[in-house]
Amino acid sequence: MIDMTFTEAERAYLRTQPLGRLATIGPTGAPQNLPVTYHLNTDTIDIGGPNLGASQKVRNIAADARVSFVVDDMADEPVGPGGQTGRGLEIRGDAELLVVEKPSLAGFSNDLIRIHPRRIVAWNIDGPGGNSRNLAASKRDQLT
Amino acid sequence: MIDMTFTEAERAYLRTQPLGRLATIGPTGAPQNLPVTYHLNTDTIDIGGPNLGASQKVRNIAADARVSFVVDDMADEPVGPGGQTGRGLEIRGDAELLVVEKPSLAGFSNDLIRIHPRRIVAWNIDGPGGNSRNLAASKRDQLT
Repeated sequence: MIDMTFTEAERAYLRTQPLGRLATIGPTGAPQNLPVTYHLNTDTIDIGGPNLGASQKVRNIAADARVSFVVDDMADEPVGPGGQTGRGLEIRGDAELLVVEKPSLAGFSNDLIRIHPRRIVAWNIDGPGGNSRNLAASKRDQLT
Repeated sequence: MIDMTFTEAERAYLRTQPLGRLATIGPTGAPQNLPVTYHLNTDTIDIGGPNLGASQKVRNIAADARVSFVVDDMADEPVGPGGQTGRGLEIRGDAELLVVEKPSLAGFSNDLIRIHPRRIVAWNIDGPGGNSRNLAASKRDQLT
């Protein structure tokens, strides 16, 4: 498990959630934040969209690749200490801008944001409590 | 309406949602992002929590007050152009750190984060489509 970017439980969770929220750094250095759909790869997360190349988030990433992507929800029953129902992951990393031949969804542009995780902060996913760790460079999927 | 920070529909929406996601700037300038509960005031948004004063988000805000707070969900039926179900608001602004006499919830600390909006980006809340605007300084609730 420690050789993998995501644990099995984190992968299973990420596959069930429809949306995450992507924070980027705007032109003045202030944060921007918005909901996006996403696709989980083995060690990275892809974010597509219609007219993605013209979006502010892509301009932000082109100027500063550092992002934070949070996926969370409230479970139907307690999953954490003290009866907490909140659970999720914050994925901090570097975003790569790619142009793909075939968009993953009809209506999406050929542009793609790929997040390469550097630090993962997870709570109430692999059982109650937190699991935060930096990803060693050797285990990290590298920017191409 | 244009004299108010939030429209009536935005206020009604913000009252129904349990969580938002708060993006702050971390020590290295990279964004951090996490879910939080919140309370809507007239022109500001308050975020409390247990041991809030010891949290990374408060340390981040003490060093750089600029935040982005997004509240969004998927509606049960289409609310936007082309059958979109996504709706929400991104609230960019400055966060003030306060110490209150009485926490808003049992278990919360006396520390409080208060967001003063500077720019609001809303989609599919006041009918289909977007409503983005900067708040004129004269209409903005000022930092104390």
